[in-house]
Amino acid sequence: MAEKKYVYLFTQAHGLGRELLGGKGAGLAEMTSIGVPVPTGFTITTEACNLYNKAGKKIPEEIVKQIFDAVKEVEQITGKTFGKGPNPLLVSVRSGARVSMPGMMDTILNLGLNDETVKALADNSGNERFAYDSYRRFILMYTNIVKEHPRDNMDKMLDDLKTANGYKLDTEVTTEQLKDLVERYKEYYKMTFNEEFPSDPKIQLINAVGAVFHSWDNERADSYRKMYNIPYEWGTAVNVQSMVFGNMGEDSGTGVAFSRNPSTGENTIYAEYLPNAQGEDVVAGIRTPLHISEFEKRLPEVYKQFCTVIKEMENHYKDMQDMEFTVEHGKLYFLQTRSGKRTATAALKIAWDLVDEGLIDEKEAVLRIEPRNLDSLLHPTFDEEELKSHTPVATGLPASPGSGTGKLAFSAKEAEERAAKGEKIVLVRAETSPEDIEGMVAAEAILTMRGGMTSHAAVVARGMGKCCVVGCSSAIIDEEKRTMTIGDKVYTDQDTISVNGSTGNVYEGSVKQVPAALTGNFARLMDCANKYKRLSIRANADVPRDAIQAVKFGAEGIGLCRTEHMFFDKDRIFHMRKMILSDTTEERVAALNELLPYQEEDFYGLYMAMDGKNVNIRLLDPPLHEFLPQEDDKIEELAQAMNISVDKIKQRIAYLHEFNPMMGLRGCRLDVEYPEIGRMQATAIIKAALRAQKDSGKKIEPEIMIPLTISIREFKYVKKIISDTCDKIIAESGQEMKYHIGTMIEIPRAALTSYQIGKEAEFFSFGTNDLTQMTFGFSRDDASKFLPAYYSTKILEQDPFATIDQVGVGRLVKLATLEGREVNPNLHVGVCGEHGGDPVSVDFFNRVGLDYVSCSPFRVPGAKLAAAQSEIRRQRELGKK
Amino acid sequence: MAEKKYVYLFTQAHGLGRELLGGKGAGLAEMTSIGVPVPTGFTITTEACNLYNKAGKKIPEEIVKQIFDAVKEVEQITGKTFGKGPNPLLVSVRSGARVSMPGMMDTILNLGLNDETVKALADNSGNERFAYDSYRRFILMYTNIVKEHPRDNMDKMLDDLKTANGYKLDTEVTTEQLKDLVERYKEYYKMTFNEEFPSDPKIQLINAVGAVFHSWDNERADSYRKMYNIPYEWGTAVNVQSMVFGNMGEDSGTGVAFSRNPSTGENTIYAEYLPNAQGEDVVAGIRTPLHISEFEKRLPEVYKQFCTVIKEMENHYKDMQDMEFTVEHGKLYFLQTRSGKRTATAALKIAWDLVDEGLIDEKEAVLRIEPRNLDSLLHPTFDEEELKSHTPVATGLPASPGSGTGKLAFSAKEAEERAAKGEKIVLVRAETSPEDIEGMVAAEAILTMRGGMTSHAAVVARGMGKCCVVGCSSAIIDEEKRTMTIGDKVYTDQDTISVNGSTGNVYEGSVKQVPAALTGNFARLMDCANKYKRLSIRANADVPRDAIQAVKFGAEGIGLCRTEHMFFDKDRIFHMRKMILSDTTEERVAALNELLPYQEEDFYGLYMAMDGKNVNIRLLDPPLHEFLPQEDDKIEELAQAMNISVDKIKQRIAYLHEFNPMMGLRGCRLDVEYPEIGRMQATAIIKAALRAQKDSGKKIEPEIMIPLTISIREFKYVKKIISDTCDKIIAESGQEMKYHIGTMIEIPRAALTSYQIGKEAEFFSFGTNDLTQMTFGFSRDDASKFLPAYYSTKILEQDPFATIDQVGVGRLVKLATLEGREVNPNLHVGVCGEHGGDPVSVDFFNRVGLDYVSCSPFRVPGAKLAAAQSEIRRQRELGKK
Repeated sequence: MAEKKYVYLFTQAHGLGRELLGGKGAGLAEMTSIGVPVPTGFTITTEACNLYNKAGKKIPEEIVKQIFDAVKEVEQITGKTFGKGPNPLLVSVRSGARVSMPGMMDTILNLGLNDETVKALADNSGNERFAYDSYRRFILMYTNIVKEHPRDNMDKMLDDLKTANGYKLDTEVTTEQLKDLVERYKEYYKMTFNEEFPSDPKIQLINAVGAVFHSWDNERADSYRKMYNIPYEWGTAVNVQSMVFGNMGEDSGTGVAFSRNPSTGENTIYAEYLPNAQGEDVVAGIRTPLHISEFEKRLPEVYKQFCTVIKEMENHYKDMQDMEFTVEHGKLYFLQTRSGKRTATAALKIAWDLVDEGLIDEKEAVLRIEPRNLDSLLHPTFDEEELKSHTPVATGLPASPGSGTGKLAFSAKEAEERAAKGEKIVLVRAETSPEDIEGMVAAEAILTMRGGMTSHAAVVARGMGKCCVVGCSSAIIDEEKRTMTIGDKVYTDQDTISVNGSTGNVYEGSVKQVPAALTGNFARLMDCANKYKRLSIRANADVPRDAIQAVKFGAEGIGLCRTEHMFFDKDRIFHMRKMILSDTTEERVAALNELLPYQEEDFYGLYMAMDGKNVNIRLLDPPLHEFLPQEDDKIEELAQAMNISVDKIKQRIAYLHEFNPMMGLRGCRLDVEYPEIGRMQATAIIKAALRAQKDSGKKIEPEIMIPLTISIREFKYVKKIISDTCDKIIAESGQEMKYHIGTMIEIPRAALTSYQIGKEAEFFSFGTNDLTQMTFGFSRDDASKFLPAYYSTKILEQDPFATIDQVGVGRLVKLATLEGREVNPNLHVGVCGEHGGDPVSVDFFNRVGLDYVSCSPFRVPGAKLAAAQSEIRRQRELGKK
Repeated sequence: MAEKKYVYLFTQAHGLGRELLGGKGAGLAEMTSIGVPVPTGFTITTEACNLYNKAGKKIPEEIVKQIFDAVKEVEQITGKTFGKGPNPLLVSVRSGARVSMPGMMDTILNLGLNDETVKALADNSGNERFAYDSYRRFILMYTNIVKEHPRDNMDKMLDDLKTANGYKLDTEVTTEQLKDLVERYKEYYKMTFNEEFPSDPKIQLINAVGAVFHSWDNERADSYRKMYNIPYEWGTAVNVQSMVFGNMGEDSGTGVAFSRNPSTGENTIYAEYLPNAQGEDVVAGIRTPLHISEFEKRLPEVYKQFCTVIKEMENHYKDMQDMEFTVEHGKLYFLQTRSGKRTATAALKIAWDLVDEGLIDEKEAVLRIEPRNLDSLLHPTFDEEELKSHTPVATGLPASPGSGTGKLAFSAKEAEERAAKGEKIVLVRAETSPEDIEGMVAAEAILTMRGGMTSHAAVVARGMGKCCVVGCSSAIIDEEKRTMTIGDKVYTDQDTISVNGSTGNVYEGSVKQVPAALTGNFARLMDCANKYKRLSIRANADVPRDAIQAVKFGAEGIGLCRTEHMFFDKDRIFHMRKMILSDTTEERVAALNELLPYQEEDFYGLYMAMDGKNVNIRLLDPPLHEFLPQEDDKIEELAQAMNISVDKIKQRIAYLHEFNPMMGLRGCRLDVEYPEIGRMQATAIIKAALRAQKDSGKKIEPEIMIPLTISIREFKYVKKIISDTCDKIIAESGQEMKYHIGTMIEIPRAALTSYQIGKEAEFFSFGTNDLTQMTFGFSRDDASKFLPAYYSTKILEQDPFATIDQVGVGRLVKLATLEGREVNPNLHVGVCGEHGGDPVSVDFFNRVGLDYVSCSPFRVPGAKLAAAQSEIRRQRELGKK
């Protein structure tokens, strides 16, 4: 029987799988198999790791033998010799588990260096300094990793040398000094471990391989395994690969290459080349890389091979590749390849080009585009090239993508007035309130000091598609003094800043913008997404302006119209306040009657804008005191109009104060307390719908959503108020009209009793913002203060208000969907919280089986794409089973 | 084959069951069967009802025949004739479904009256006015119920008559006027229905029976059936019973009787008697009943029978009975019997007397006491008799039982100072805050204008066992002006009021008090409850004073020690504030170190007071800003002590402001943000426990509870902070000590992920207050404003903060218990929210299988009793299965 193999050359390993070879080893084998010139080497399998552990942290004899056999083969292939000149074989040693595991051993480079081979390296490279610096680093790495000895003392030796000589950079250290340092490192090693630093590369290698196996057992790896449920039995593989050097003369060089242009997507190789250099030289900024044409000019044959291999790799991986390469004495090596990062524009072009070239199919193209990146196509963005020359002065949360440049305005009114005069304005506020809306509309961008991803500014800006950065706490905004202070610098209303809503960065001065592009490849992607998605994608929109925007972005209906936003308008808020401050039902009804025509007109506008598509209108939701005046002049004005004393109004305001308004008198509790509010709103909805149905000729079936429901009885009670009103108006109109009444599921109790509520509701719409608040007990207005501590301790890994918490909140969503449908198979189920626009959450909602998601208009394309991706993946998984 | 029977005389019906006879019919049959003289009559079965409905709302011929056969028998037994003088048989007709159903038909009395029999009734009673008034009422009832015609017009005829004559009371209307009214009623009937008012009692009867059957179909009955899931097929029975009259002369009379004294429980008949009168006369207050000895004097033979029957009834029903009786011409009838209402003292005595008399067993005695009523035994209460002469001037929510009388104090400081001088004080506040605690201790009672059953005042007062009424919105308390205004009356600090915490009533002046009694029958009950209960009963107590009280009431440990209450003390709050306002960790640690000795001392006191019983200490829970100073002088004082500017402090206070503090930085979030807080508390707990263990010689195993947990990762993170601290101190001490770390389950997400948290936690304690807040989205501080609308609309039938919502919150409790135990069979599970003291909730917790409940000390006996009752019932149910 043949001896069991534990060591495979890259050329022998293809197809053995990552279980045996680890991820890195499998990748090197794959590249080798398709003819990519990869520096030769071999993989020691994960099975060897397990044997090492079983044998009590010792590499069994037979494996040692196989390793040195492999080294022999590498020597033959490369024509180099391990541990000897004139052409010494140097190798790198890397760990490689089945999945990538940060916290495992670092890489050891240049193993094989000793007093003899270092000289050969110096000769071959014609660079003695390089050779001894490599030797110094090798000793340091070996000591640190193989002997698990802290770097501190050895680092200090270099630092002391620099200090003594007044050097600032490592590069100032001379060759002689490096030679001396190598000697002192070896001396230090001897004193510390009572043994010579091993000059025999075989000993170096066996100890390094053992160290990698041992690192599978270290504490960091252990806690990582626990966190991600990785079995100890998997073990890690070790990759030993010959080093290649691009600094071996003018027939050598190094560079990076993309198989296509990562910025535009154009199908031409995009690369940079540095002759007679190492990759590190590029990184260290010592030398500037040349245009790739220099490569072709200097080494035309090698360049030809280079182009061929790149195409082969792209054809093999079926995606644009990002590669590192090195030429050593005219021989080309690829050190690494991976799918290349690219701009959204490039991603689209590449995906469709690959389809047209027959390399991938339509579904694969849909999967290739990251939904989050679409945002940048929908908004004007800053020019990537120009951005490189700007450094952010502050960074906040990227609340609403896009870009905006303008002078600072410190109040909504100021923003509105100055914008009206033609100035470009950035509205900067400590935080925004509903009264700021007009100023937000007028501004190019919004920047707030406080607030999280679901603060007022963030939610409203996303709805408008307006660039917005929130929670930028390093920008101290003083609204009274009308200044913004960042560090030492004070900005006034005459200063210009640029805000990047996609990254959260804030720049001084103006940055060039690139416009949005919704046609061509983008349109092709959206058509394709429509074809494969199962979820319907609706938009959250409160006014016709947003609704029109939403339809432009492909929204298939309105999933949430928040009626409260309509009341903040100057003309209306006055009546709203009168309503709230009414002492009697009669007064309240009178004030509501004044609001009715406005509300009806708003709804009419929405219905006309949506042209027969579904519009889901939610009844008044926020705590009433949000509408109350704070300023004395406004209070006085109200007092006069209502013919009561200022004191009385103040009393009523004080009475309405709540300790925790988020859990107070809001949502349908308003309709239980004041049924006349629900009646007014139902009247406005149905009258508007009847009128729009007549005027547009399209059949309209209003959807009316009851917010904050806690129980079946509450739902029935409010539903009756609404349906009685609707039925009466429809009967009087003589028109035919069906309407649908459903509920938000945003209170845990509603989810827990969905098997009751589902009997009466025609639809459920998960209000995942509030559901997240209540399920976590996190006030979204306050959580931004303590969430950073949760991220830094890894208690939370993502903002639960941005991406749905599948385990907790998601459990309620699943449960309510299941139990609601059990009692009502026709129940229409969707989501209208902010999560409806988050790709990961959309995937979850699709898999839970919801009917639709609804998000702000600018997130509709991303949601659509995410829905299509989710469904394509789900179908593939079903196919596999 | 014999004809199927649809009509049963009471004497024939015993044992046929309430399915056939309805509840009322079965009861009458039962009384008859044990020889209680019940006015003769018969029941028409529920089957007849179903036939009536099948026959298209018509009583089938055979049933009509059986009805009149039964009437014949009643005539024979009573010696009266139906529809004829001189001794006419008059009957009542009542519905009677299987379960009592409000919303069904009302009773028709005196059916059988017509122009002839009314005269006989006048003659027999010697009271013509009575006879015609009865006739008038009968016509009205018949018209209203049988013909389903509104009463309005006929009521107006009487009202007009009174107005025209200047009468205020119905009793002023003369006989002649009543005779005239009867004629006009009949005329009205004729004009309305185009038919004569039926003078034939057979027609009257058949129509009345039909009306009862028909009422099973009416809308009110229908919605009641839906609400309580009562099947339509059950149908209703009809009871026809001969009328008896106590106003037929001096050999007649009426009265009410208790088989034992309902006030003291003494085993002697307690009754009132009114000769020659009807029950209504007593109710109308026209005549004052006589002592029962008058009955014996006037009708000794009847009285003897009366006493015998009462004993028989008590023996049969095995409980103290409350009965209505009538004597007609020397013949005794019992019209009704039921278990009599009694005071808590009486309830105890009766129950144990019944045990001693061999009528019931111990378990039954335990079941006989209403746990809610025990409260009145634990506190001094107002003298029942004296209360009768007081009318409440205002009523609030009965937040904490007991009674208190004193002069008004408008601030905690004032209460403390005046009480120290020997004044009896009632502390009246708009609402209380943690700073008021000392004032609350000093006061006899607490009255607040705002707040609900779980407001600060309510929770703290219950903990102290201090009489407290909250949310008394009709008492306008002006703390600045130091006045309390109720209606037009203004009370000042020199006015005395009396507050009844058991009813919520507030009285002017002082009311005599009765002291508490914890020995004798009470102690016997507690012993017995201990014997049968399964749940362990702990108390919520924060200070040794409360802990001692709790032990006195039988607490088996402390289930919740809220560490925050310790920080409100004058000496401590200053350090607490310094800690909160610290800018750096070092400053914070320094301030915490100053708090440490206080905290350790508190815990030491608790451990010593509990003498080895379990003490579960919860880490700091409330939002930090609760501790912050509001007043300028306090802020200045702090600024000086901390050597920073007032502005800086105000800035920090503003920064700490939260929009929804209940969902803000509190609970273990404090430990995530500031681990030094948890470290200090763990240090204090373990040091105190070690010292107490040494000093008391009792083994102590501290239980440390992490509040507001949201996830397994958070729990593990905080647990490590605590256990690292504990382990170190224990190791240093040289003593042996085990400790237990568990968590509150009070955030829905914790319940939903209990299958994860359970792996790491040693115990779960449901914080049902917060769990209710989050599950309903009800802020307990604000909900009292809108909950009244929820009660009046029947959306809610009880305060979810007082009795656990089994469907919603309870579902989470069940789920978390089940799933937590699945991963950790040793998980100890309890409740420490306010619900732990509510009997209905305790029953739920027992059935869910929790290990313990914890409630305020004064609620411990009630919880214990409720736990025993629940377990006895559960065992009985298991036995039945």
